[in-house]
Amino acid sequence: MGPHPAVARIRRELRLSLAGLPRGALVLAACSGGADSLALAACLGFAAPRLGLRAGLLTVDHGLQEGSRERAEEVARLAAGLGLEPAEALTVTVGTAGGPEAAAREARYGALSSAAERLGASAVLLGHTREDQAETVLLRLARGSGTRSLAGMPAAAGLYRRPLLGVARRATRAACEALGLVPWEDPHNADPAYTRVRVRHDVLPVLERALGPGVTEALARTAGLCRDDADALDAWADEVCARLGDTGAGLAVAELAGLPAAVRRRVIQRAALAAGAAGSALAAVHIEQVDRLITAWRGQRMVELPGGVGVVRRYGTLIFASTLT
Amino acid sequence: MGPHPAVARIRRELRLSLAGLPRGALVLAACSGGADSLALAACLGFAAPRLGLRAGLLTVDHGLQEGSRERAEEVARLAAGLGLEPAEALTVTVGTAGGPEAAAREARYGALSSAAERLGASAVLLGHTREDQAETVLLRLARGSGTRSLAGMPAAAGLYRRPLLGVARRATRAACEALGLVPWEDPHNADPAYTRVRVRHDVLPVLERALGPGVTEALARTAGLCRDDADALDAWADEVCARLGDTGAGLAVAELAGLPAAVRRRVIQRAALAAGAAGSALAAVHIEQVDRLITAWRGQRMVELPGGVGVVRRYGTLIFASTLT
Repeated sequence: MGPHPAVARIRRELRLSLAGLPRGALVLAACSGGADSLALAACLGFAAPRLGLRAGLLTVDHGLQEGSRERAEEVARLAAGLGLEPAEALTVTVGTAGGPEAAAREARYGALSSAAERLGASAVLLGHTREDQAETVLLRLARGSGTRSLAGMPAAAGLYRRPLLGVARRATRAACEALGLVPWEDPHNADPAYTRVRVRHDVLPVLERALGPGVTEALARTAGLCRDDADALDAWADEVCARLGDTGAGLAVAELAGLPAAVRRRVIQRAALAAGAAGSALAAVHIEQVDRLITAWRGQRMVELPGGVGVVRRYGTLIFASTLT
Repeated sequence: MGPHPAVARIRRELRLSLAGLPRGALVLAACSGGADSLALAACLGFAAPRLGLRAGLLTVDHGLQEGSRERAEEVARLAAGLGLEPAEALTVTVGTAGGPEAAAREARYGALSSAAERLGASAVLLGHTREDQAETVLLRLARGSGTRSLAGMPAAAGLYRRPLLGVARRATRAACEALGLVPWEDPHNADPAYTRVRVRHDVLPVLERALGPGVTEALARTAGLCRDDADALDAWADEVCARLGDTGAGLAVAELAGLPAAVRRRVIQRAALAAGAAGSALAAVHIEQVDRLITAWRGQRMVELPGGVGVVRRYGTLIFASTLT
């Protein structure tokens, strides 16, 4: 008898995700003890030796809930039975910057990255599923910030890999059950104070009722398509920037005016950042103002960008310069 | 005392939308009698003569509701008081193909286009608002078909223009009230048998509660950004197709392999359509199969596309050919 179909599916995605890693490389599963990352960790323990890889586990104690230390230690103890070694429970201190979700995320990734470096790992696996990806797309939609934002979470970025982005959440539960593993139910996952929880429990079910049961899959597919589109447009903008050379000397308006709006805006953004504009505060409205120096020129004054950068048009050239002295 | 702010806003959007039309051109408002298109028609009657344009009105009787003929005639009679001449009530027969919404839309646009041509109009204005655009983006999301689909409705396409895509629905109601016009409430707009109605009444309010009140605006902004991105990528694909020349002779795999995935897929789609593939049935999964002839070559057989087109890879070239004899 072969493995349960959900287990087989997760193992297959894992193999695809890990293809190309050198023999003997260490791969770490980031595991909260929840169904998604527990199924991932268990399947990694099975798949890694068959791929000539070493596999370990990291779990993070955020220190935000009663008993979180004990739970993290329990998850780390599970690891040996799953064939994962080394296994570490990392303790972090969660700040407040950017709200509770962002602060916990930053602390978690910081700890995972440090531990991966210390242990010499080649990859850290995250258990985000198709539903997590769909929720991310909906959360990003609310920002209205375009294709890159809608691209959701990448399947691979730096050390991190997300083998389960195409796998339904119910498959990870089924896998845990088939493997005799009891996942931990994080009470935060039911707390409506978190935007993501509201999207999961309120928005997605209503969307599915209104639009049909394929919505989650469609949202995840949208993310993939938007990622490819954003990558291609970034490549185009990079090519333009490389061709136009040092932006300190200014960008030729005639050259910019011939570009599609989507590429022109990306080039403007790159020039603004290169001149020292503050990326976090640079918004679509600023890019739009600079764009009007090209497309709706009527002798405008300097456009001021956050971070002390000014943009002027002089003799057919856009000049980006610091306004700080 | 100036006009009500909502009226001023709609007139301003109208002026922007109509800029560039030649003096004496005829512009027709498509008006159902609902608040959006009624406000648009009224503002057109005011703005057109000031822009040197002639303005008229079209209304469509879909014959689907009791009294629809009388209502259409009533809307047409309103026109004279709004300064709109000619004004016509067009009767259509709604089929069943593609479901009730698609069938009604097809019949409506067919009648509007014919009447516009017969009357020698330069533009037909549609009253779609920011909320309509947001609903369209959500409806398209459910398809998972990418950036072009998320681009929503265009502000201008052929004869048609949509001056109100950036205007909130409540502004059109406010404008009607300020102008002493009583809009017709279409009972179809409250009928949950229509997907769009479910999106409007069920999905958008839940999204706003979960993600904040800016969601509608963010969705409409997303549409605009996705449109620009899709336009740029289409331009890139067109340029590649023009450079590679007649696709009947085949596409060089080496050339295709060097393109970003988003552009390569668009080039494949163009080549498939040029070879006679059925556009309506050509899905992402087909494009993906052809793409694997480039990116994951292991001697695959012919990929069959709907419409009787086969794609093979021979000596480093993709050949698209009819499989019908």
